[in-house]
Amino acid sequence: MSAQHDWRQTVAAKQQQRQSNIDAFIADQDPALTEKITAIDDTVLLSRLLATGELKSEDVTRAYITSLTEMLFSEAIQDAKRLDEYLRVNGKPIGPFHGVPMTLKDQFNIKGYDTTLGYTVRALKPASEDAVLVKMLRSMGAVTIAKTNVPQSIMWGETDNPLYGLTTNPMNADYTPGGSTGGEAAALYMNGSILGWGTDIGGSVRIPSHMMGVYGLRCSNSRLPHRGCLVSTVGQEHSPSSVGPLARSLSTIQHAMKEIILREPWQSDYYVSPVAWRQSMYEEYSTKKLTIGLFLDDGMVRPHPPVTRALQQAAAALRAAGHEVIEWPLDLHAETIELMDEFFTVDGGQDIRRDVEAGGEPYIPAIESLVNAGEAISLHDYWQLNKRKANLRQAHLEKWTTVKSPTTGRTVDAILMPVMPHSAVPHQATRWTGYTKVWNLLDYVALALPGGKVEGADCAAQWDYAPRNEADEWIGSVWRDRKEEMAEMGLPVGVQIVGGRLEEEKVLAIGKVLDDLLRA
Amino acid sequence: MSAQHDWRQTVAAKQQQRQSNIDAFIADQDPALTEKITAIDDTVLLSRLLATGELKSEDVTRAYITSLTEMLFSEAIQDAKRLDEYLRVNGKPIGPFHGVPMTLKDQFNIKGYDTTLGYTVRALKPASEDAVLVKMLRSMGAVTIAKTNVPQSIMWGETDNPLYGLTTNPMNADYTPGGSTGGEAAALYMNGSILGWGTDIGGSVRIPSHMMGVYGLRCSNSRLPHRGCLVSTVGQEHSPSSVGPLARSLSTIQHAMKEIILREPWQSDYYVSPVAWRQSMYEEYSTKKLTIGLFLDDGMVRPHPPVTRALQQAAAALRAAGHEVIEWPLDLHAETIELMDEFFTVDGGQDIRRDVEAGGEPYIPAIESLVNAGEAISLHDYWQLNKRKANLRQAHLEKWTTVKSPTTGRTVDAILMPVMPHSAVPHQATRWTGYTKVWNLLDYVALALPGGKVEGADCAAQWDYAPRNEADEWIGSVWRDRKEEMAEMGLPVGVQIVGGRLEEEKVLAIGKVLDDLLRA
Repeated sequence: MSAQHDWRQTVAAKQQQRQSNIDAFIADQDPALTEKITAIDDTVLLSRLLATGELKSEDVTRAYITSLTEMLFSEAIQDAKRLDEYLRVNGKPIGPFHGVPMTLKDQFNIKGYDTTLGYTVRALKPASEDAVLVKMLRSMGAVTIAKTNVPQSIMWGETDNPLYGLTTNPMNADYTPGGSTGGEAAALYMNGSILGWGTDIGGSVRIPSHMMGVYGLRCSNSRLPHRGCLVSTVGQEHSPSSVGPLARSLSTIQHAMKEIILREPWQSDYYVSPVAWRQSMYEEYSTKKLTIGLFLDDGMVRPHPPVTRALQQAAAALRAAGHEVIEWPLDLHAETIELMDEFFTVDGGQDIRRDVEAGGEPYIPAIESLVNAGEAISLHDYWQLNKRKANLRQAHLEKWTTVKSPTTGRTVDAILMPVMPHSAVPHQATRWTGYTKVWNLLDYVALALPGGKVEGADCAAQWDYAPRNEADEWIGSVWRDRKEEMAEMGLPVGVQIVGGRLEEEKVLAIGKVLDDLLRA
Repeated sequence: MSAQHDWRQTVAAKQQQRQSNIDAFIADQDPALTEKITAIDDTVLLSRLLATGELKSEDVTRAYITSLTEMLFSEAIQDAKRLDEYLRVNGKPIGPFHGVPMTLKDQFNIKGYDTTLGYTVRALKPASEDAVLVKMLRSMGAVTIAKTNVPQSIMWGETDNPLYGLTTNPMNADYTPGGSTGGEAAALYMNGSILGWGTDIGGSVRIPSHMMGVYGLRCSNSRLPHRGCLVSTVGQEHSPSSVGPLARSLSTIQHAMKEIILREPWQSDYYVSPVAWRQSMYEEYSTKKLTIGLFLDDGMVRPHPPVTRALQQAAAALRAAGHEVIEWPLDLHAETIELMDEFFTVDGGQDIRRDVEAGGEPYIPAIESLVNAGEAISLHDYWQLNKRKANLRQAHLEKWTTVKSPTTGRTVDAILMPVMPHSAVPHQATRWTGYTKVWNLLDYVALALPGGKVEGADCAAQWDYAPRNEADEWIGSVWRDRKEEMAEMGLPVGVQIVGGRLEEEKVLAIGKVLDDLLRA
């Protein structure tokens, strides 16, 4: 394959294809209508306007297409016209997402379009079938308008590849929007999408959500359909990626999760656990007095002052509303992160190398480091890592049942902690994903939600210390060197709410409690 | 370790330890009382007699100990006395299994006792903690009276190892009771247990249940606690063993499953999926008119005539009761079995070899073949097997949704099929586990229940054909050579009811519908 494949030619052909798709639709849209439509942050509201006919699906679809910079779909307009006609004839919407435009990370198969994972060798090879999630969304009335950019191989917390190039932060092109679901988060920030779908294998939904000031949910692996969502290191089951939504409002995420799960996705995707939508769990945690574990610092990399401040403000808001906040101890974190790092390189980079070499394009630096991090280990040694993982998972479960409020004796309902030790940073400065990937190894549910912004006052915080390690030193230096610039941009800072495995309803409920307090 | 370890000495020491445990309890029990107690097949009935005080826990425990031939526990009597005292003082049972004696396969950790998996190197090294399941059962009042024999490494459908020796079929010592949970099935047959706990990685609960004429449930892997239940090939997650109950009545199995799941085992074992007990699912399938897929022959190994006859009688009974029975096609079975066989040898036998060589004892023949079946494969190739597995799982799911009744258009509620192509057979004659292991790769729920016995009339069935392959030829010859002997013994023949992943409630309900018809 590599003999016949010229990666530069593929890139040129792909970018030409994209440009003609864009040109065909940057048409005579009314800019005021586009702005009005794309400013709506909430699919619940948008669905209502579409269901009553106050907005036409075609106008909504055209408005979104106009403001997108990635790949576009002519089918979207056809879909929208069909939906408008359906509403006219039947007097009711076709489903809960009737006419709601959605975007998906370039991992989900959409019939007739490429699924590249950022590899040139996979470009210009359209999928023959929709992913199960795409089928479900469409059957519920959604209009899938675009696929968004990812890093080469998907295995990085920023977004760059030789095929589509670098995705930059819309607030400052020298900064990253995060990754690997970076294209989605940037599109959401620019009102280019109202509901985006990504995957998270080490933080890939939460990191860009945090950096772009939007909401992102890492579900447990088996809660949402994954069939037809391609991955690198395919076949690894030790800690697979999980599909999750990103949005500009939490109600949109809750809406999407509930409607999908109510349709029993385990009937159409083997991968999905048959766990029904538990409205009672959602309601219980929406209304009860909560016990929250506050986890400020993992002991390895110090969060920048605005991250810590945002968490303390969130904790104060919870306390003021009558919830209890206790300290969450850091034991088990270091060894969990260390094991996760061992897993990331178990195959000696073989899977990624195969695709990149078949394409012939250069590695991006982070992926070059990853594939050269070590030799493949034996199957027997791999199973020993799984054994360590099982023991760590059990230890974390037991930790959760033993850390108790000194006043009430209750265990915590969720943990409140950083998503990243920093806000958005310049390209290639992302070097510590320990606050997110620990939950991937445990398959716990984790929600990133906006906690505030970097402020001028943060720059005065004390920031002199002996670095704990190289990553700590590096991340500390980013704050020292960039803090005024970051404060001036007012970069978003997220916070992370973590619950147990398959506890999406609980985490969404607690997220809403906190979100309502922070937005009040 | 192997330098200091003399396996013959370990075997002698272990057997001496066992004998003194037995000697201490083969005491002055009243034989009539023992017989009366151990003849009770149903934990629901036994629990009622214990709860009202009609039977004393101590008498029940002594009765069971007396009729056991495996390892025994002095703690059991202490537990029983404590329970009797609890009932006297509190006037109510301590839990749903108050005083119910149970046995466990020699894989479950019980504090103070060995967990050997049939390896001499693991003998005389008592566990320091109870398995999660053992803790739960004890907290519910169960008295754990014994651990039962397994094959060396557990990876075989019969029961033999150099440590404890060969477990024979109580009906004929030349025959196997099946395996790997063979000790449990033999104990149940002899009224030496009322509820046994095993594991199933390729048929290990169902095969001995079928051969000994008892009930055995292969749960989905994550339905019951597995923590503290040791396995060989530890760390393999491609198709792990699942814990399941064996009993002399189906109501006992349903009772055990329900009571355990109601106590939310996912709170104490990470491994367990948070799937609540769904009484509504149980009731739905207990009462509705069912659609059953009948699967008589996998196209590779022909079942012996009594197996086919038992299935046809079961199908006729279902039809007579107004249920629909349609044909279940055999596509996908051959490739699923082939993939499962590839998985069984992926590590080149390294894990098993390590334990056997550390002990120094000889291999039993089946395990010697297994560990020498091939070299370990690379991690990358292993992941490609997982990819094939994921595709097969999805294909089976889609098959289930497309095979429909030609009259009602309904998909099947369960499949009715053989457990094994034959009843109990002479030692070392077991060579085809394709009818059971296909469901392990899919993690589907499967119940073995008694379907009948080998009868003299079966011997007249036509049995001339061109063998399809070596296994088919071998298994055919066993029937040709042994059929009169098998009919004379009236060997039990089971049938298998199969449902989807984590559908234990459904499979138990349909099993009861069929069991009630067969027992009527």
